[in-house]
Amino acid sequence: MNAAEVLRRIGEERPLVHHITNYVTVNLVANVTLSTGALPVMAHAREEAREMASLASALVLNIGTLDPGQIEAMLLAGRSANRRGIPVVLDPVGAGATPLRTQAAERILSELEVSAVCGNAGEVATLAGLSAEVRGVESLSGDAKEAAEKAAGTLGVTVAATGVTDYVSDGTRTLAVENGHPLMGHVVGSGCASTAVVGCFAAVGGGSAQTVAGALALFGLAGEVAAEGAEGPGTFEPRLLDALAGLAADPARIEGGSGFRVRNTGPAAGP
Amino acid sequence: MNAAEVLRRIGEERPLVHHITNYVTVNLVANVTLSTGALPVMAHAREEAREMASLASALVLNIGTLDPGQIEAMLLAGRSANRRGIPVVLDPVGAGATPLRTQAAERILSELEVSAVCGNAGEVATLAGLSAEVRGVESLSGDAKEAAEKAAGTLGVTVAATGVTDYVSDGTRTLAVENGHPLMGHVVGSGCASTAVVGCFAAVGGGSAQTVAGALALFGLAGEVAAEGAEGPGTFEPRLLDALAGLAADPARIEGGSGFRVRNTGPAAGP
Amino acid sequence: MNAAEVLRRIGEERPLVHHITNYVTVNLVANVTLSTGALPVMAHAREEAREMASLASALVLNIGTLDPGQIEAMLLAGRSANRRGIPVVLDPVGAGATPLRTQAAERILSELEVSAVCGNAGEVATLAGLSAEVRGVESLSGDAKEAAEKAAGTLGVTVAATGVTDYVSDGTRTLAVENGHPLMGHVVGSGCASTAVVGCFAAVGGGSAQTVAGALALFGLAGEVAAEGAEGPGTFEPRLLDALAGLAADPARIEGGSGFRVRNTGPAAGP
Repeated sequence: MNAAEVLRRIGEERPLVHHITNYVTVNLVANVTLSTGALPVMAHAREEAREMASLASALVLNIGTLDPGQIEAMLLAGRSANRRGIPVVLDPVGAGATPLRTQAAERILSELEVSAVCGNAGEVATLAGLSAEVRGVESLSGDAKEAAEKAAGTLGVTVAATGVTDYVSDGTRTLAVENGHPLMGHVVGSGCASTAVVGCFAAVGGGSAQTVAGALALFGLAGEVAAEGAEGPGTFEPRLLDALAGLAADPARIEGGSGFRVRNTGPAAGP
Repeated sequence: MNAAEVLRRIGEERPLVHHITNYVTVNLVANVTLSTGALPVMAHAREEAREMASLASALVLNIGTLDPGQIEAMLLAGRSANRRGIPVVLDPVGAGATPLRTQAAERILSELEVSAVCGNAGEVATLAGLSAEVRGVESLSGDAKEAAEKAAGTLGVTVAATGVTDYVSDGTRTLAVENGHPLMGHVVGSGCASTAVVGCFAAVGGGSAQTVAGALALFGLAGEVAAEGAEGPGTFEPRLLDALAGLAADPARIEGGSGFRVRNTGPAAGP
Repeated sequence: MNAAEVLRRIGEERPLVHHITNYVTVNLVANVTLSTGALPVMAHAREEAREMASLASALVLNIGTLDPGQIEAMLLAGRSANRRGIPVVLDPVGAGATPLRTQAAERILSELEVSAVCGNAGEVATLAGLSAEVRGVESLSGDAKEAAEKAAGTLGVTVAATGVTDYVSDGTRTLAVENGHPLMGHVVGSGCASTAVVGCFAAVGGGSAQTVAGALALFGLAGEVAAEGAEGPGTFEPRLLDALAGLAADPARIEGGSGFRVRNTGPAAGP
């Protein structure tokens, strides 16, 4: 399904997207979800994680401010999502920085059927078993394309390694998404927000590389629109929501991938 | 007390409003509280919930990201508030979506003396024992007026069911508030924020239907002001705070209910 | 080190600043940190607090929404920071309001080596053993200069008591910082945000009175820049981030303390 079609279906179906996520960027994540036309719900308690996931059309797990109770809730919600066959999207925030995060991401990937993983190059490289420099939740180096391809091959899921260029691989082919604007790197949570858009797209379109790349291209394009007239990272953020909501409300603007800079990089490198 | 008078007293007394609330919209809720002239404080630990409530002039309980520890803290704070006779305002976010939320809202209503309940039509219908469609934290259907009247009658408290038109009932009469702007539905937390304004109003004016309707009319009017010049939901939100702070700083602008679209709908329907 | 030099080093070194902080203002705190050029990371779980602090260049402890688990995490992270000799900055939000907060702040100060304390006049007075009126997290009275000097003398650390004028004392001398704008008092979290800037400065410049005063002057100056064109507290906040990011990206603008209104108030009063 192309991105314009995905947005139309989101607007018609208003899918509920259940996020178990960090408290740093949770408000942005919720507003981004709503701006695509989907309905966000945040519910982290073990006592309701299962039920909430059973009402949702997609589950987004973001480990940005993890604690052991949250890991349990993620697994409960994830199993409920798997039973119902709705997509589960993982953002392994800070994997590689501390054992708690790395092990939680690995446990989620081994115990749940995950549809797509979206992280920065360092986080994805960590999950692929490549060496990576992760400073806190920032990736400082690493080949994003190689990380995405290696992780997709090893884990058997669609993997997006986001950065100046985002690479989305399903292990067979790799798409490069070049939409975006440097100001996105100056706003806390733009990574979490892009994963949220992936979650909304997955809710109606599943976790294929094309759908994930469409979500990232849309979000990057919104960033390009928002940057016009922004005076810095502070005024950029509300404009980003405006731009995203504007594009989502008028999918004809991206018909046929108009404005998208997505290219096929050819077959993924072998393992 | 009319809304202009309430705002003047808030400005003079700077009442402390204690919120136990969700982490999705907590920043907006705090800023909305401060913008009315009241002082917000958030304190969720069982170890201080009682003491913090004992310093406050109103307590606002919002179950948007509930867990069992928070329910306990809400009950501790609520009992402290009841002993001191300060108003308790409940926002039953997501009641009807999961048993944890529905039961928590019911427990709060049965164990505490609540002054006012503010929720969307589906949440209020759930508490009134009517059937309702709640998707996550969004209400998708339901007659808001009927829900408010039925819940007010059953629970014996002032109940506001918010939506395009807000209905505020005390079981005897029902006020309809028509202030507001469609963009408010595109910002995560506008419901939580309107409940916060009700909490601030209750801190000096109590929980009568008139006071609650005044709070909702003020917030809706701020939304109307904010919409002028907003380019979408992102730029609308900061403008909403500007507008609310502007109105609160100059209560003469709403003297005699100027700008308010509140009407008496006649006696509430019998149970 | 003067402020321009500090900013240059932050831009070159991109220090990781580990915050254990409240969920009300955490997003602003993270964005403020990023806007100075430093990298924020939030990690509150006991299971990773130590490791995350061991990757960081400064640790900021903010007790704004405290619970017992968080106190433990703060002590674990703090000991890790102390072993490595990186600065620890404490914002004792709400000390004086409830025993939980007052005792937590005192415990942190007695069990850890803290480099700088930044709070409002009432919070600092509480820690200095002076009488103070604290309403929730707002200070309503008190002599900020006396509080800073007394606390610095008693605790043996640099202490900033922030308000219309900020006073920064090391027990020997006291600097007054007069930068700032009244709108800062109308935004929830401007105190937390100023402490975050102190944490970023401390990461490369340590916790001397001069460095702390430079951080507060920079933040106040950003507020002055942001106020031009703001229409209220809502539109002021994103402009504050723009202004801070703009100053951080061009340290020449504050070369030689240009724009700073910092004065030496003479030797601190004896205890």
